[in-house]
Amino acid sequence: MERAVRELWSESRDLLGLHSSSPDGGDASAVPRADLPPTPLAFLRDHVSPGRPLLVSAAATRHWRATSLWPNNSYLPDALRSTAVSLHLTPDGRADALAPHPHPHPRRPGSSRCFASAHVRRVDFPTAVRLIRESDPAAGLVAYAQQQDDCLRGEYAAVAGDVDAHVPWASEALGCLPEAVNLWIGNSHSVTSFHKDHYDNIYVVVSGEKHFLLLPPTEHHRLYVRDYPAARYVSAEQEAEGKLLKLKLEMEEPERMVPWSSVDPYPASPGEMAAQASSFPLYFDGPAPIRCTVRAGEMLYLPSMWFHHVSQSPGPNGLTIAVNYWYDMQFDIKYAYFNFLRSLEIDDCSSDKNGALEGDLEEEKD
Amino acid sequence: MERAVRELWSESRDLLGLHSSSPDGGDASAVPRADLPPTPLAFLRDHVSPGRPLLVSAAATRHWRATSLWPNNSYLPDALRSTAVSLHLTPDGRADALAPHPHPHPRRPGSSRCFASAHVRRVDFPTAVRLIRESDPAAGLVAYAQQQDDCLRGEYAAVAGDVDAHVPWASEALGCLPEAVNLWIGNSHSVTSFHKDHYDNIYVVVSGEKHFLLLPPTEHHRLYVRDYPAARYVSAEQEAEGKLLKLKLEMEEPERMVPWSSVDPYPASPGEMAAQASSFPLYFDGPAPIRCTVRAGEMLYLPSMWFHHVSQSPGPNGLTIAVNYWYDMQFDIKYAYFNFLRSLEIDDCSSDKNGALEGDLEEEKD
Repeated sequence: MERAVRELWSESRDLLGLHSSSPDGGDASAVPRADLPPTPLAFLRDHVSPGRPLLVSAAATRHWRATSLWPNNSYLPDALRSTAVSLHLTPDGRADALAPHPHPHPRRPGSSRCFASAHVRRVDFPTAVRLIRESDPAAGLVAYAQQQDDCLRGEYAAVAGDVDAHVPWASEALGCLPEAVNLWIGNSHSVTSFHKDHYDNIYVVVSGEKHFLLLPPTEHHRLYVRDYPAARYVSAEQEAEGKLLKLKLEMEEPERMVPWSSVDPYPASPGEMAAQASSFPLYFDGPAPIRCTVRAGEMLYLPSMWFHHVSQSPGPNGLTIAVNYWYDMQFDIKYAYFNFLRSLEIDDCSSDKNGALEGDLEEEKD
Repeated sequence: MERAVRELWSESRDLLGLHSSSPDGGDASAVPRADLPPTPLAFLRDHVSPGRPLLVSAAATRHWRATSLWPNNSYLPDALRSTAVSLHLTPDGRADALAPHPHPHPRRPGSSRCFASAHVRRVDFPTAVRLIRESDPAAGLVAYAQQQDDCLRGEYAAVAGDVDAHVPWASEALGCLPEAVNLWIGNSHSVTSFHKDHYDNIYVVVSGEKHFLLLPPTEHHRLYVRDYPAARYVSAEQEAEGKLLKLKLEMEEPERMVPWSSVDPYPASPGEMAAQASSFPLYFDGPAPIRCTVRAGEMLYLPSMWFHHVSQSPGPNGLTIAVNYWYDMQFDIKYAYFNFLRSLEIDDCSSDKNGALEGDLEEEKD
């Protein structure tokens, strides 16, 4: 079974014309680039239908007012002066990510980690920007405006007109308007862990850069998706004006399990790296993930069900600002194939089992 | 493994909105119908990308000269009076199909069948039509004009202008012109056994009806594709003018193996039916194939890699006449998934093996 799955990884990358980055870890992106937005037909035929990402150059957003206005330090805080927004707070910039379980069970080795959601607070937008800029894992507080509930057309409606309401060539190709349009404001401390979305995604960077690690859905097994108990950061102390919050992690009650990738592609220490590599060999020994940096003005089409890990670099204004458009995906034969693949345990057949898969059985070691 | 594969069958039919025919075997077709040809974008989005067949009503070909001219008894024989064409001759109407091995190996139980190709003869077109009309399995000779080498633009170039040179909405959607355009002339005695093509196919009936049994590529295992030694019908006697040929089957030398479906969905006798049902339970016990009858003037879009079995009824002129357009398929993630599925033995894992799969192991019994 493992051999068949590895063959699938290799063939799907070959057929998509997507090869992994240069071995030096450089910025060479294998994602196809277009200088101009594609026609709806070419987009559908060459990208949506085959499930192939596309990076469109900044020409596509040159007409957006946001392109010139949002990088300006004062424009957004002025426009949203009295707007309350949802700010996501974590101690380390890892919202919706695995974290050490606050009460690990001594006799259950698989219970050392949980799935941690951010502490979400409504603050006025100028405060949100200040907290994002002051984010510091050393001080135990990182703020990220990443409310993913169509927030650009909700909380941020006052500035929604600065960007296109939808992506015309994508809407025409997909035959619908976006289900959600989200705004993301953070800085280098915020990281989004490996996950996939049930949407076709058009991701546009307005300020700074976003760094994507991508894996096609065929490489599902490399992510070691397991069920983790859900937890949430809560405020540990009464808050005083101007005093930074202290956050602590609380398990959700009643218990709720969240399937999430076990893999951290950037372990913080050599020891963690060794533990990850030994626990998750299909990720660390397999083909390198496809790297793609999206610069200000550029648009990334990320096909539905692709796994992505996102980190970011701020622009000159100290912020990474992005907008994304989620379009309903088509649940078709590709989706059925994905579910079939996911239903297979890579070590289903004892004849194929080998030492390299020990990590898969042992789930985690950190 | 078998459970996971059955789940894939069920989910892919659900997602494609394709359910099997009515249990009474009636003509209720589950293939989506359109009264008018789709736009290129809708065709690509709703049919090519998800891999979903489409039947387009006769309105699409009303402007073809072939629609009015070809059903006429004298038009084609006049237009092709002095044209030599390739005629495919078999004793029973089953070209490119399994046949009893002429020299079965007594100690190799899997060697009782071979893959038989027709005896191909160049005859003038009026003779071809006469032989097709006189086809009679009882007399041991069935003729079928089914040269699949772009023959409408080759041997039949004189009448190629009677149909559209390509299918405009398909060409625009797929971004290319047809790789091949073929003409098919036969009658009710000719049957095409289950197979798949590496093309997107637009199949147009001009006279009579074609009856398709369809299975999506996800149902690969139900076809029991196995390697069979290739054989060819040859003329057994010196031919005299006006004398019917006698055909006999000769194994190809050197031996050549052809992977082909072991399943005959219409066994000729109750005994053969019982043998087939016991040897190929995944086909006979699984969901009914999708039935689709294409009538004169109608077009069937058959996505690449779909398995199809085709039988036919003649029109008032005694002939079934059809034209098909083969477009290069896109080798994308769906193709990689298919190859992965195909690489899995449904009884790979001994824990899942059960009595229902005996036929799979035993290959054949007839």
